[in-house]
Amino acid sequence: MADGKSSKKTAIFAVNGYLNRIMTYNQLFENIKSCGSFLCVGLDTDPELIPVHFLAETNRLLLFNMEIIDATAPYCVAYKLNTAFYEAEGTVGIDQMLMTVRYIRKKYPEKLIIADAKRGDIGNTAERYAKAYFDTFDFDAITLNPYMGSDSVRPFLDHDGKWSIILALTSNKSSEEFETFGEAPNMPNAFNESLYGTVIEKAKFWGSRDNTMFVVGATKADSLKKIRKYCPDHFLLVPGVGAQGGSLEEVANAGLNSHCGLLVNSSRGIIYASRDEKFASAAGKAAAEMAKQMKILMKRI
Amino acid sequence: MADGKSSKKTAIFAVNGYLNRIMTYNQLFENIKSCGSFLCVGLDTDPELIPVHFLAETNRLLLFNMEIIDATAPYCVAYKLNTAFYEAEGTVGIDQMLMTVRYIRKKYPEKLIIADAKRGDIGNTAERYAKAYFDTFDFDAITLNPYMGSDSVRPFLDHDGKWSIILALTSNKSSEEFETFGEAPNMPNAFNESLYGTVIEKAKFWGSRDNTMFVVGATKADSLKKIRKYCPDHFLLVPGVGAQGGSLEEVANAGLNSHCGLLVNSSRGIIYASRDEKFASAAGKAAAEMAKQMKILMKRI
Repeated sequence: MADGKSSKKTAIFAVNGYLNRIMTYNQLFENIKSCGSFLCVGLDTDPELIPVHFLAETNRLLLFNMEIIDATAPYCVAYKLNTAFYEAEGTVGIDQMLMTVRYIRKKYPEKLIIADAKRGDIGNTAERYAKAYFDTFDFDAITLNPYMGSDSVRPFLDHDGKWSIILALTSNKSSEEFETFGEAPNMPNAFNESLYGTVIEKAKFWGSRDNTMFVVGATKADSLKKIRKYCPDHFLLVPGVGAQGGSLEEVANAGLNSHCGLLVNSSRGIIYASRDEKFASAAGKAAAEMAKQMKILMKRI
Repeated sequence: MADGKSSKKTAIFAVNGYLNRIMTYNQLFENIKSCGSFLCVGLDTDPELIPVHFLAETNRLLLFNMEIIDATAPYCVAYKLNTAFYEAEGTVGIDQMLMTVRYIRKKYPEKLIIADAKRGDIGNTAERYAKAYFDTFDFDAITLNPYMGSDSVRPFLDHDGKWSIILALTSNKSSEEFETFGEAPNMPNAFNESLYGTVIEKAKFWGSRDNTMFVVGATKADSLKKIRKYCPDHFLLVPGVGAQGGSLEEVANAGLNSHCGLLVNSSRGIIYASRDEKFASAAGKAAAEMAKQMKILMKRI
């Protein structure tokens, strides 16, 4: 993103009838400071896991999300909607994804709203996904799969004021099958020898820290340290704390930079903290607990 | 897929109220022989490219697709719906994707219906995508991105009688950024030295030729030959003939096996063969022309 464009980023403009704002790198850091938290709450809303009293409702995903959002908003700076959970319910589910975004936009306009969609396709198709997620569904950011290369990411970067969050090293066990491909075990400092290192080395120049983040799993704190060395400025979206076993303190030790530089996501650990009627206050408590730890960890920046 | 399960594959069962059939490897080959074609028609239906007389219609994507399908059905064995084009229109678009699948299912039950969705995510999320595309939207097959490894593919393979079509070497220019990562230019015969080779070498053992295909771009005929050597039995889905510059003859020379083993996709070259009111007959002619070439090329198997 050329510097000449950065003045545009403070503009307020209308999308889908809403007054919209652009979330800049600096604004995100300001929000993190004022919230005292770098928490992203993951709305992986599963009809089989939400409290049973929602099951009679047509809009059960939305109604559950609204209560979770109200309970957790004081403790987080971002929400991440996992598109699979909405797609699995068909158009009724996708409608509720859209309505959840609108609810956050209107009531909590300072929150970053991420589509965890992990899309990636050739240029003309990537343009349609960018239209879908940035225009039609009005997200601020989308997660992207880099396998097919820069063609599949550039159409997203062309949307001024929107964020591309590119998979690098993910939190799942089988990330070791391809993402670490090429890594030489006897060369612990080699970075662009590995696929994920090469992805970061190349992709950080496709855009800039102002429109690009990388996904790095919390279960990979050693690699996170290495990634931070080679990629000092970019925000990293870190899933895998909690249910998947990553440690918040290790992530902060390895990944914090002078602008925080981290968004740590928790999904199941927060939204399913309780599955009875007190689910929302339990979610609020779980989020507050993480925010409390984050506030302490941030003192070092 | 255990051999003991293969008898199940000829079963007819009900999904979404329709009597459904399972498309086996052998049935697909039978369909290719009786049709005399291994053509897959790509329904990348773009409101900006369809004839203007559709624009006043709410269901314009569906109405366009129905005419294209009727015109091309005699010449193809599969339809591939590119999910991005439907998602870009929001839930109205996704509804039309669903209705297009139903239209093909009812009227042309022998066609393989592919969701070109390129999904890939951790296990619990992959399960939701599998539910979305195999159950809710009722596709036979889905394209998948292997970056995150086997965790992200296994939930799809667990759906008996459905197909996982895994990206290996794609047709776009930037496929050379990561997909060929590790390839040693002075070792032209090395296969699993490259990322795409490693993907095929590993992924062909996750399932079998009965539930797994690979995507290999038509623009990469030399690599296709190498892939066919290491992966003799699997079907390969080959995009990139036509608009993207790949040659059908080169693809057939490199990729045909004793069960055909190829599904060659054409999207723009067929569905936008003409953009006036005669678009459907033009699409039919373009598909017939490809099928004619395919019939000749198949004589060698």
